[in-house]
Order: sequence, then C-alpha cells, then structure tokens
Amino acid sequence: MTFTRIDGRTPDQLRQVRITRNWLDHAEGSVLVEFGKTRVLVAASVTTGVPRWRTGSGLGWVTAEYEMLPRATHTRSDRESRRGKVGGRTHEISRLIGRSLRAVIDYRALGENTIVLDCDVLQADGGTRTAAITGAYVALVDAVEHLRGLGALKGEPLKDSVAAVSVGFDKAGTALLDLCYEEDSAAGTDLNVVMTGSGRFIEVQGTAEGAPFSRDELGVLLDLGTAGCAELTAKQLEALR
Amino acid sequence: MTFTRIDGRTPDQLRQVRITRNWLDHAEGSVLVEFGKTRVLVAASVTTGVPRWRTGSGLGWVTAEYEMLPRATHTRSDRESRRGKVGGRTHEISRLIGRSLRAVIDYRALGENTIVLDCDVLQADGGTRTAAITGAYVALVDAVEHLRGLGALKGEPLKDSVAAVSVGFDKAGTALLDLCYEEDSAAGTDLNVVMTGSGRFIEVQGTAEGAPFSRDELGVLLDLGTAGCAELTAKQLEALR
Amino acid sequence: MTFTRIDGRTPDQLRQVRITRNWLDHAEGSVLVEFGKTRVLVAASVTTGVPRWRTGSGLGWVTAEYEMLPRATHTRSDRESRRGKVGGRTHEISRLIGRSLRAVIDYRALGENTIVLDCDVLQADGGTRTAAITGAYVALVDAVEHLRGLGALKGEPLKDSVAAVSVGFDKAGTALLDLCYEEDSAAGTDLNVVMTGSGRFIEVQGTAEGAPFSRDELGVLLDLGTAGCAELTAKQLEALR
Amino acid sequence: MTFTRIDGRTPDQLRQVRITRNWLDHAEGSVLVEFGKTRVLVAASVTTGVPRWRTGSGLGWVTAEYEMLPRATHTRSDRESRRGKVGGRTHEISRLIGRSLRAVIDYRALGENTIVLDCDVLQADGGTRTAAITGAYVALVDAVEHLRGLGALKGEPLKDSVAAVSVGFDKAGTALLDLCYEEDSAAGTDLNVVMTGSGRFIEVQGTAEGAPFSRDELGVLLDLGTAGCAELTAKQLEALR
Amino acid sequence: MTFTRIDGRTPDQLRQVRITRNWLDHAEGSVLVEFGKTRVLVAASVTTGVPRWRTGSGLGWVTAEYEMLPRATHTRSDRESRRGKVGGRTHEISRLIGRSLRAVIDYRALGENTIVLDCDVLQADGGTRTAAITGAYVALVDAVEHLRGLGALKGEPLKDSVAAVSVGFDKAGTALLDLCYEEDSAAGTDLNVVMTGSGRFIEVQGTAEGAPFSRDELGVLLDLGTAGCAELTAKQLEALR
Amino acid sequence: MTFTRIDGRTPDQLRQVRITRNWLDHAEGSVLVEFGKTRVLVAASVTTGVPRWRTGSGLGWVTAEYEMLPRATHTRSDRESRRGKVGGRTHEISRLIGRSLRAVIDYRALGENTIVLDCDVLQADGGTRTAAITGAYVALVDAVEHLRGLGALKGEPLKDSVAAVSVGFDKAGTALLDLCYEEDSAAGTDLNVVMTGSGRFIEVQGTAEGAPFSRDELGVLLDLGTAGCAELTAKQLEALR
Repeated sequence: MTFTRIDGRTPDQLRQVRITRNWLDHAEGSVLVEFGKTRVLVAASVTTGVPRWRTGSGLGWVTAEYEMLPRATHTRSDRESRRGKVGGRTHEISRLIGRSLRAVIDYRALGENTIVLDCDVLQADGGTRTAAITGAYVALVDAVEHLRGLGALKGEPLKDSVAAVSVGFDKAGTALLDLCYEEDSAAGTDLNVVMTGSGRFIEVQGTAEGAPFSRDELGVLLDLGTAGCAELTAKQLEALR
Repeated sequence: MTFTRIDGRTPDQLRQVRITRNWLDHAEGSVLVEFGKTRVLVAASVTTGVPRWRTGSGLGWVTAEYEMLPRATHTRSDRESRRGKVGGRTHEISRLIGRSLRAVIDYRALGENTIVLDCDVLQADGGTRTAAITGAYVALVDAVEHLRGLGALKGEPLKDSVAAVSVGFDKAGTALLDLCYEEDSAAGTDLNVVMTGSGRFIEVQGTAEGAPFSRDELGVLLDLGTAGCAELTAKQLEALR
Repeated sequence: MTFTRIDGRTPDQLRQVRITRNWLDHAEGSVLVEFGKTRVLVAASVTTGVPRWRTGSGLGWVTAEYEMLPRATHTRSDRESRRGKVGGRTHEISRLIGRSLRAVIDYRALGENTIVLDCDVLQADGGTRTAAITGAYVALVDAVEHLRGLGALKGEPLKDSVAAVSVGFDKAGTALLDLCYEEDSAAGTDLNVVMTGSGRFIEVQGTAEGAPFSRDELGVLLDLGTAGCAELTAKQLEALR
Repeated sequence: MTFTRIDGRTPDQLRQVRITRNWLDHAEGSVLVEFGKTRVLVAASVTTGVPRWRTGSGLGWVTAEYEMLPRATHTRSDRESRRGKVGGRTHEISRLIGRSLRAVIDYRALGENTIVLDCDVLQADGGTRTAAITGAYVALVDAVEHLRGLGALKGEPLKDSVAAVSVGFDKAGTALLDLCYEEDSAAGTDLNVVMTGSGRFIEVQGTAEGAPFSRDELGVLLDLGTAGCAELTAKQLEALR
Repeated sequence: MTFTRIDGRTPDQLRQVRITRNWLDHAEGSVLVEFGKTRVLVAASVTTGVPRWRTGSGLGWVTAEYEMLPRATHTRSDRESRRGKVGGRTHEISRLIGRSLRAVIDYRALGENTIVLDCDVLQADGGTRTAAITGAYVALVDAVEHLRGLGALKGEPLKDSVAAVSVGFDKAGTALLDLCYEEDSAAGTDLNVVMTGSGRFIEVQGTAEGAPFSRDELGVLLDLGTAGCAELTAKQLEALR
Repeated sequence: MTFTRIDGRTPDQLRQVRITRNWLDHAEGSVLVEFGKTRVLVAASVTTGVPRWRTGSGLGWVTAEYEMLPRATHTRSDRESRRGKVGGRTHEISRLIGRSLRAVIDYRALGENTIVLDCDVLQADGGTRTAAITGAYVALVDAVEHLRGLGALKGEPLKDSVAAVSVGFDKAGTALLDLCYEEDSAAGTDLNVVMTGSGRFIEVQGTAEGAPFSRDELGVLLDLGTAGCAELTAKQLEALR
C-alpha cells in the first residue's frame, strides 16, 4: 500500500523548488525562492563598513531580517510597522537566518563590509524560514561576487554552502520531509534542520508542542532532514551555475 | 529634432505596463503591477463586517496600506517595523490610495464588507503610488467578484474605474508622462493625477519644491495626465478581460 | 436671489482673517493666525546649523510640524503623544506646510541655518492647514529678519511670499471659498491651493471622495482659490508692515 | 534697604495673574491663565460615562493631561508625539494636576460623568504646573456648570476651590513667592503648594537638589505659599463672578 | 590526566543548583532558582479565564515572559521598557519557556484557567533560559496545586515534569555540561536540551556560530544533556517534596 | 488602652528593616533592602564618563531607574517593556530617587564618572520608593568606594547620607510611620519624607486625595517622619560597618 500526502508527494519528497536569481534590479544579490506555494523574496544589500561595535576589527558582518507581507497568509495579519512593534516570531526567525549564514562566513576574508539579507515572505505555505535560508545563501553568493568584482575582499569569505528544510511526524507517526502549512499545523513534532553543503549541522531546532519525542524518533527526523538538505544543496548549485 | 528621454521614450509615452492578475493564491484579488522597473504587489483582502464606527450602517468600507520593502530602492532603507513607526510618506500614500479607490465605490451596494488593499513595493523606480492605484483597482475588481460569488453584494459597488499617472516638467521645460526615478528627482514640478475611466478627476496633487508653476503650465500637465490615464484604463480593461 | 452661507458670507468671501505677530516672547518669529474660529499658533525657531545630511553644503533648511491640541475640535481627541504615534493626517499636513514654505526659500542665501515652524492648532473650524501655511509665512519672515540682524544670511532667502486657501463645491454645486468645518464636511470636492504672492502655484491638492470632478469644475475652483490667495497675500503684507 | 527681584517684584508678590474664561468655543470650560509670561491654555472636556474600571459605581471621574508646546521654552524641544513617548516630567505634572482637582470633587455628586482637563503650556516662564492647577480649577467650575445645565449632577460636586503656587529660597536665603524661570533655576530649594480655598493643604512638594532645608525653613516657605494661594483664590473668585 | 573546568567542575558536572520555593508572598507559585551564579526569580500567576481567542473552548493556557534586570550582566544594559521595545533575544527565550511548559500540560484538565510564568533574571552567568525552565516547572506545580485547592481543575493537568540544561564543546573538543558564561562565550557549538522527567525531548536547539557539527558530535551532546536533565529532574522532585 | 496596627506594630514603629549588601556578584554596589514584605533589589553601576550634555565639565552624574516586577504586587501587572511605554508612576519614582541621591553628592569630587542606581521591586507591600531610596544610598556608598579603589575620585563625593520613610493618618486620625500596603490604601493623607543623616529635608511630598490636611497635621507627620529617618540612618550605618 502506498502512502500519499495531501499534495500527492511521497513522505521523503521535497515540494517543487524554484530559485530565480536576479529577480531585482538594484540589489547586489537577489533571489525569488519558492518551495511549492511558499514564495520568499531575498535581497542582499552590500555596504562598505560594519556596525560601530565592530569597526576597526578588520572583520566583516552578515545579518538578516525576515518579515511577512500582511496577506502572505490565508487570512490577513496586521502589519508589524502599524502595530509599532516587531513580533517575537519575526525576531526569532530573523536571528536564525542570520546565524545560519554567518556559520559559513570567514569574517576576515569578507573585510570590513556588511551584507544584509532581507527575506520578505510574499506567500506562506509552511517552511518559510527554511526557504528563506536556502534562498538567502544564493543571494549571499551573488553579493560576495559583487564585492569580489570591486576588489573589496581579503580572501574567500564563503567556507561552505547552507541549506535548510523542515521535517516532522504526522499524526500516524510517519516522518515527512518539507512540510506544507496544513501538514505543519497537524504535526506533533517539528524539526528545522540547517546544514552545510558538506553535510554538517549548523542549527537543529526540534519542538514538540504536542508529544515529546524519543532519541530514536529524533534520529529518523535527522536522517530525513540530512537527505533533504543534500537535495537542496544540489538545487542551489544548479541555480548558481 | 527629436527629443529622447533617458530610457528612450518620447515625452508622452508610458513605460511598459504589465498587470499580472492572481499572482497570489490566498488573496481574494491580487495583482503584480509593473510600470517599467517599478513593481508593486497588490493583495486585496475581503472580510465580512466593517470597522466598529461603521457597524450597523449597512455601508461597506475600502482602505489601503502602502509600504516599501527595504531594498526596493537603490540603497537599502531601514524597515518601518524596526524603527517602530510608520513614516510620513508611507502614511500619506496609503491615505491617497484608499481615497482614490473609495471615490468609485458605492458603499451601500458593497454591503457591510471590508476590502483592504495591501500595496507592497517590491522594486521602486518612480511612480510607485500611481502604479499602486492602477494595480489596486484591478485587484479590487477581483475582490468584488469574489463577494459577488458569495452573494454578499447588494448591487454593483463599482461605479467607475480608477487609474493614476505622474507627470512633470524636466529642467528644459518639457512636459513628461510617467516619470521614472531619475526624471522625478530632476523635475521641478511633479503632478500626480488620479482619474476615473470616464475621464473625471478624483485627485490632483501638484507640487513645486523647485519652481512654482503657472495656470498654463498646470493645464499642459493636466492634458498629459488625462491622456496617460486613458491609456492605463485601456490596459486595466485588457487585464480584466 | 442672493445665496447666503451658513455663517452669512457670500460664496467668494473669506472668513475674518486676523494675523497677530509676536504672540510669543521667546520664539524668533511667532504668529497667532485666525481664519474665523480656526486659530493656529505658529512659532518659528531658528538654530545655527542644519541636519546632518546637509552639513557642509552651504545650504539652509526649513521644516514644519503641525499638530492639534486635543480639544481643538468639537469633541476631544486623544493626544498623539499618549498614543505613542503620530497619525497619518498629522504627518501629511506637516509635510505639506514644510514643502510650501521651502518653495520660496533660497537655501544658499539662508546659509547653514535651520528654521522650524511649529503650527499648533488651538481651535479647529476647517482650513487649519491653509491657515497654518498663511500664518507660517509671516512667522518665517520674522525669523529671517532675526537671522539678518545677526548677520547670518548670505543674501535674501525669501524669493516670494506664500498663502493658502481651501475651495470646494457645496451639494448644490456652488463653488465656495475658505470652507468652515461644516461646509468642508458637506463638500463633495475639496481643493487646497497654495500660491506665491506673484500668483503661481506651489501646491494644488484636489480630492473627490464624493463625486469626481471635471476639468471645467477644476478651473472654477482654481479661479476662486487664486482670488482668495491674493487677498490673503494682501493681509500678510499688512501684518508685516 | 529694599530688596528687588529680577522683574521688580517684592519677595512676597505674585506676578501679574490673568484668568480669561471661555477662550475656546467648543470646550465645556476653557481658560487662558497667565502668571506673568507663563501662559497655559486649559480646556475642560465633559463626557458622559466613566472609564471602564469605574463603570456602574455611580461615581464620576476627573483627570488631567499636561503638555508643553515645543517652543514654549527659550529653546525648542522635540515634540513628545514625535519621540513616541511621553517624558517623565510631563507624566509627573499631569498626575499632580489630576490629584489636586480630585481632592475637591465629590464623585457621587458628579454622577457617572468624566471631566478631562487639558493643560497645554503655550509659553513657559516658571510655575507652569501651579498656573495650570489654578486655571484648571476655573475651567472645572465651568464644566460642572455645563453638567448642571444638563441636569446631569446628583448634587454639588465641588467641595472647595483649589489654587497652587511655587515658593523657594534664592541664593542669599530670601524666600520668594511665585518664582519665574530664572529665579527657579537659581533656587536651591523649591516648594510647590496646592491648597484649598479654605486654607488646607492638598499637596506639598518640596525639593532640594541644592541644599537640604531645615524644619524652620520649610515653615517660612509654607507661610509664604499659604498667603500666595489665598491671593490666587481671590483672583479665581473674581474671574468666576 | 584529569581535566578541570574554569570553576573546578568535571566536564559532566552541573553547577550547584538551588531551588528555593515560595520566595515571594503574593504569587500562587514562586521559585528562586540558582545554577551557580545564575539566579532567576520565577513567579507563577494564576487567573481565572483564558485569552479571548480561547474563551469557551474548555481549555486552559500557560505562557511565560522572560526578562533580565539591567545589571544582571557584567556590564549594565539599557532597560527594554525604556528603549520602548522588547529585544529579539528576550522574545525568543520567552517563547521557548512557554512552549516547553505547555508540552507537559493537559489543557482540558487545567480548565479555563491561565498560568503566567514570569522569569526575571536577577543575575546572569550563562544558562539563564535553562535555569528559568527548570525553576518554572516547580513554580508551575505550586500554581497547579493552588488551583487544585480551589477545586478549579478538571483532572490532573501535569502529564510529566520538565527540566532543561545547556551542553557544548570547548575549543579542545571536550563536551561540557551546564556552561557558565565564560564557557558559553568560548564554545563553538551550543545545545539547549529540554526534556521531560520520563526522558523524552521537548525541545532541542543546537547552534553552531563557530564550527558546524557532525551527527556523532550531536549524539555526544544529546547524551550529556540527557544525563544532566535527569539530575535536574531529581533536584526538582526533592524541592517539591 | 493600647492601639495596635494591622501587623501588630505601634503607630511610630518601623517594619523590620533588613539591608543585605553585596547581594549581586557583578555590580559595583548592590543591596537587597527589605521593609517588612517590601523587597527591593538595588544595583549600582559605575561607568567612566558622563552623559554627553555634561562631558568636559569635570562633574560627575548620579541617576536612578525604578521598576516593579510584574508579580511584585497582589495581582499581576503587565510589563512596561511589553506595553512599549514606561508608566507615569514609574517615571515619577525614578526621578524622585535620582534627585534624592544627587542632593548629597559633590559632583566635582565624583569626577567625570556616572553611577546608575537600578531599583527593582521584587515584592511590594507599600513604601517601595522609600525602601528604594534607603537601600540605594547604601549601594551608592559601595559604588563610591569602588571608584575610590580605582583612584578615580577628586575628593569625597558623599556630603551626607540619605534615608526615606512614609507617614500618614489612618481613618481615625492616628499618625502612622512606615505604612504597609493596606494602611497606605486606607490613608487619607500620605507623606513621603526624604532626609539627610544630619536631619535636613531633601524632599517632602505630601498628598491628600481624600481629606486636605492642616498645617498642624503636617507638623505631626513631619515629626514622625523625622524620627523614622533617624532610625533608618542608624540601620544604614550598621549595614555599612
């Protein structure tokens, strides 16, 4: 008997992934990344110099900001700018994306330059943070190339590549790769895996609001996530060719 | 002798205008509208009911919110959500878009329903407010059709169509239609014209930070804007076919 | 048959306009301007130096802030300071006043000095923005004289004078000059005209939330507004004598 | 030998006090109160009903908000609305004014009605809080009369009158009544006294940033403040006649 | 050869853990929890009813807020209340604590009651979030007992216990349990483990800003964290006896 | 007949006062001060340099911030950081504490150094501001000693000591020293007295929301407060021994 997911995928299958480079004209790097219906616009902005607390260190800086358009979701949410404050979830994901990319950066080779990755979710259907990380890496590569073109680098700032995917168990205990919104809502356990192209972990975030999970279950999810990240790494390479 | 503009257009020529409907999957109406490199994503969200101050009146409501992504522009701007307040320009344009669309709405026919038009500038190259209004009208039509499909209307809420364009004089005194960013920055006088499909004015906003303008000069700009809006009205109809 | 307005004026008659200079003791220029019951206190503050982005340019700066006292209106409004944010209308009008005054300023002659015009509405009965602009010009002249007295000018910074008035159609289609609150609420179309003393337009803002207007109707309003601004210019001159 | 103050007054002399009632057309009570160059506009707003936490109690409510216009002072201050937060001094004085007036209110007689006293400082020259309290009492009386006219009272809500004045020592140890800005800045000790018309204390706030004061010195200041409040009470009665 | 840590511990040794119940008099549950010099005050507040979006569901709610006193750290930080916004880290940790405790709650048995856990860091020396979770569980038990005493429960709301600890590698690759601030700053990889008393994972958060980690290294950290959580569970039980 | 208070004290008796120095490890001075159940943690932070407006003056600066933990009180209050603004009461008390300590500081002897006193109320049972001032003085002494140890002083910055206590009348007119929360709520008149060790007043704040008080009643309260401050001064000396 074959198991089919809500959108017809097998449990270990990614959604259709599209990575469109240079979607914007002004940004030094830009990507429209799509994981199925999830659609994130990433813009990489390069500026000379680093934040004040880092000035004179000879080291570069990479940071990220994530935000959702108000109608990215099924029902409209208020804009964070109108509410006058940034929500906890937005902060948390912005920080995750920044940390993930910084893990493959050689700050010294980057020189005293800053790259900001703006990840704006145009449409959300689950996995916005993992799509953002996966796309942001590609935009980051283009921004680094821009700096290389200017002769502003002190070496090769990219030590590895980065990709990310979500994994989780459905109600029946089947492990699923790259959860869409409906699957994500139903999942008891949800794990986000951020990995390098060389197969090491940058970030592992597993959460059980429903049923706590065992060490063996964690192992199953890590296996599935590792395979998913490897596939995404291949797609990034293809986009960058 | 022939005059050519920075991007090769004649003075009375619009940039290439593209109106892509249904760019989003969740919103009741959505449009990606492009005036050359200016690219605005409009999402129309329908909700049953109206703001508290209007409840029980039998009248509907239409409003708009405008915002720019941080890297829509040539250099990155800080997010308004992070600064904790919405800037004056953002407020001013949001209010203009809302007023412009409400001018063609029959509130009674709309019934006690609200339509919010989120206009997010993905890329800016001048004329973002006029592109937003022009695209928002198309998204509004689709949102109204959605309500019609639900049997939630009390009549035909759309009394007319709306389109908008900018016009201005260059340094040499030539009147130009649909200014791009570089032309806009150089213009001494800048006029935004919002018109109905039937050729009447909804909003006329002329500003001279540089040289104040005469009644005759205003007439020249109004002629040019009227012609531009008529062309845009035709493109809206085509998109809606 | 003679038409009479709610307050007994003829259609093309201004309300009683009073411009009281030096209403404050500390400010470098100050005016209490009254258009009938509308009462705006304008204070011009001079400071040496300009905002950071303009420093070293040799150019001066003029800006404005508009705000209403909570009980300026018929019913009390919450203070914007307590709500923690400035509303869209407040921003929009502050920007309009600043642009209007800058249109007659020669920045180079002003030298690297800044003049801030605070326009606080003590009582509102329609036309607060036009009263504010008309009064602010007079306070600006006094602030410029103060700088002249200090020998801080590089020439004559005032290229012209500025006055502003509102015009609109009532329900019966009669064009009215200088609308009071009750007329303004009832008007289908509302036009604010900002003009120089020499009769050129600085800003034309026409809005039709009710019925869109034709080119001919716009012409009628512009004629009326032009006449009203000329009268206001005369009153400014008289006050400055 | 006769001592003279900076503005020619004797030590125990008030500045010229003017209390102009009905300075506004819309507010239920309004006063322009002047203590020399200090000029505070007080508007009393009446609304039916009380804040949620008091609803159904049968008791009324009185509260106050104090704020300074940006150019009330010798040099311009930023607006609290633009900074997005209300400063500590503004909060502190608003609370003092509210408490002072509530001390003479019989909440039950007021019925479930609210009176808000907006005290906006148009010009500041020391003693703005005491001028505000003194003027606010007069505006409060007019607002209570307004309620009486509507038949909305359950008895006499005003149990007494309220006036306030500042007192302090100059450098030479002379006790001064009603300090102007320059005297206030130089004073080592500064006491604000809020009293009822019947000569009892509502609030006594003495502060020594400079030299701490003895019990005897406190006595001298209390005597002087008591006399000053009695004079102000007489002026309030005259204004209300 | 024996390895010793900066504070004399062995690699797999917890700091001295103290859990003082009823540290406060008003709160329904309260704990001062100490992991070495890290000192967190947890107050559990019980209220009848649940947030609006949950009203009428028959389900309870548990949430948490985390914050640091300004001088909890080696150098003083500005208060988030004064900056007017809550930082990303504060949000992220508040959310983590809330999720962790909700994982062991049976909402139906809790009835429509809310328990808020305020975790205020009085002194920080690494591991503040894990100390907060470990202490918050104990305060939660007391708050649940309080509800039981009132007869407000519908069953047993606590399905399990929760404890948390941090683990990481030092520069030399030794895995360390319960990192103090200095060890945490130096660690390349840092893992926070939240577990139930029955030995299942609620949350696993591993981060490598320095060197990405392998699957084997993750295994070593999970083993160490599992042992640490078991020890903490024992200490919680002892405190609750 | 003997009068007894709600907690068994005589009218002129302080609650049990405990002053625990060095409660924190990082701060340059720290005190846990307890007035009965009122418990305030004071941390003194020393930094080299002074705020910008004072730089180069050769003078030091002392300031204070006061805040309550959300569950310091009988029922939980929202955090000011989450509400995005600091309340009026918090501001008012912070300013009072700062002024009180500055009254005994010789700025020149302090040199260009800043001491910030963070007073966080862990538990509130009336008199939090007076406990905070009394404890803050002790933490200030330790911070000054820290600066002395660094050789950073220009003389003796402490001109005197500071203590504070509340006094008030109960319903029956008995004067009470050091009011607990329940007494404070019931009191018609409430006076906070801040005094130097040498018996002079720094701040006297008397408030009558209930019944205004006479000069004689004020005298009774001042006598009682003077005695209370003398006792607190003795306890401070003991703690500092």
